[in-house]
Amino acid sequence: MKRIELSHGAGGKEMGLLIRKHILSRFSKGNAEVALHALDDSAVVNDVVFTTDSHTVQPIFFPGGDIGRLAVAGTVNDIASLGAKPVAMSLAIVLEEGFEMDLFEKIMESIAETAEEAGVEIVTGDTKVVERGSMKDIIVTTSAIGIATPLLEENHKMVKRCKWLLDSSLQVGDKIILTGTIADHGIAIISKREGYGFEGEVESDVAPLYGLMEKALQEGGIASAKDATRGGIANALNEMAEKSGVGIIIEEEKIPIREATLAACEMLGLDPLAVGNEGKMIIGVVEEKAEEVLEAIRKHKYGKEAEIIGEVVEGKHVILKTKVGGKRIVETPTGELIPRIC
Amino acid sequence: MKRIELSHGAGGKEMGLLIRKHILSRFSKGNAEVALHALDDSAVVNDVVFTTDSHTVQPIFFPGGDIGRLAVAGTVNDIASLGAKPVAMSLAIVLEEGFEMDLFEKIMESIAETAEEAGVEIVTGDTKVVERGSMKDIIVTTSAIGIATPLLEENHKMVKRCKWLLDSSLQVGDKIILTGTIADHGIAIISKREGYGFEGEVESDVAPLYGLMEKALQEGGIASAKDATRGGIANALNEMAEKSGVGIIIEEEKIPIREATLAACEMLGLDPLAVGNEGKMIIGVVEEKAEEVLEAIRKHKYGKEAEIIGEVVEGKHVILKTKVGGKRIVETPTGELIPRIC
Repeated sequence: MKRIELSHGAGGKEMGLLIRKHILSRFSKGNAEVALHALDDSAVVNDVVFTTDSHTVQPIFFPGGDIGRLAVAGTVNDIASLGAKPVAMSLAIVLEEGFEMDLFEKIMESIAETAEEAGVEIVTGDTKVVERGSMKDIIVTTSAIGIATPLLEENHKMVKRCKWLLDSSLQVGDKIILTGTIADHGIAIISKREGYGFEGEVESDVAPLYGLMEKALQEGGIASAKDATRGGIANALNEMAEKSGVGIIIEEEKIPIREATLAACEMLGLDPLAVGNEGKMIIGVVEEKAEEVLEAIRKHKYGKEAEIIGEVVEGKHVILKTKVGGKRIVETPTGELIPRIC
Repeated sequence: MKRIELSHGAGGKEMGLLIRKHILSRFSKGNAEVALHALDDSAVVNDVVFTTDSHTVQPIFFPGGDIGRLAVAGTVNDIASLGAKPVAMSLAIVLEEGFEMDLFEKIMESIAETAEEAGVEIVTGDTKVVERGSMKDIIVTTSAIGIATPLLEENHKMVKRCKWLLDSSLQVGDKIILTGTIADHGIAIISKREGYGFEGEVESDVAPLYGLMEKALQEGGIASAKDATRGGIANALNEMAEKSGVGIIIEEEKIPIREATLAACEMLGLDPLAVGNEGKMIIGVVEEKAEEVLEAIRKHKYGKEAEIIGEVVEGKHVILKTKVGGKRIVETPTGELIPRIC
């Protein structure tokens, strides 16, 4: 009998298969401007951008954040990655009977603070409580709606692709900007969870990114964006390349990574490209605007370590030019990767 | 140490306290037209109606439905109860590792069918898998967005209260329509769950209700609507009365209830007014249109047993006129009521 496996939720190849074969196949294609079948970060319907995420991370408090901040940031970043401004969120909470009220309040406080930072209003919600032992602690599901701004319209006039910054909008010649260091979130989670002890040095990057996207859009020339969460930049870049029908070459020496994070990845045998982030955007920019956009992003507090890590080429693979001058194909990650990071 | 209790999710008084004291107090009031603080079925922001629900029902398959149909119906009904037309839904799924793929497919099929019946497109989603034993089966969180239709605008011209059919829009003299029999969903769930054996006779009423609301709106004169889920009509009527600053008198002999459901409630010592429904709307109608609206609703397949069960009066309580001629106050339910029904 076929059963659900952990890898079905890990953000890599198996999850893609589950979604395509067992979910998408059942739903009609409908009339949405950006529909489920696009498998982008958000949908667009009646010019409203709409997205959802369930957050099941363990531990619920980790270095650099908690499940509340993660839920808000993760969801508004899916809106921001289409270039839209998040305006409102919903908050559905499932709690385990016996969960400490103090912890619940800390999480609510964190949600309120992150929503304020992100400029979104929590407008609707739901609360369920399940019997002790039939779930662990808390699950937070956030959905958000967003709108196109004049900034995005201006950008569209310049770039003349889809108004929304879709995964499928890359074209050969575009530059690929990564807004900062990779793998910090995944390492912070696994270290705290498994007690590896890196957590003194590595903190999650969890952060809401619309402010940073606004800086980029002010410069213009933005073609595409995607937040690199589960499956890391390896997964995000492969999705973008596949949906755009292009190849992407990235340079290892340009990819920002903290020393402690890299050391942890090496000790654990993890490819940092496949380890998740919660505050990093991959942005495709038309070549002539790439340097200006990079400078603008670096002025934002969440973009100080941004780099142009590569470019879009003919082909269909994501290729890594290694520091020693070799080349390897960066595959869509498979298997369980690391424990759930969101 | 204070801890979360099952009653915090049961839809009655304790849930109201948790939400007001520990959640709402942390969130700013913001700019939404209908915001979180209204605690209505949905919010309204930028003229978009927006709602969310997490579904944790056990058993996940029950007489008359399953968690998939429940998730779609429960969420579109929150949109419909504002008088808006649901247009798009999100679908966030959390699965337990080892969950049978066949059951997963059945649930997806049920979601697809109910979404089609409800006329909504599933446009975005999320999938997580948690370790075996750290959750039970599946949690389905659906959010939906809806819009005002010309029908709702016409109704507004006639009724001249809030355009949206808010809990707080009742006025003295309005008639209260209940769209069919009560307590079927709650009894179906508890019977299957606890093995009481009523489930051969009592089926859940779970159904999407926008089609029925359209029939009502076509007649016009609709002031308010609310779907009577957790806490049953006792909870829904109390919320409407409190938010509208009015009293409501209902007549026991007018309240539709199936014989088998009533017998089950009596055996289990449950007040059917406090047992949840998943396909029943309470609709406040201006007096002069009440009979026409009732006739229109009865022509819809989910409204055949609709009745005018009472009216809005001065005061602040929900009062039940019993069959034997007595009167009693119908309180907001307290405690755990029955096991989670949604």
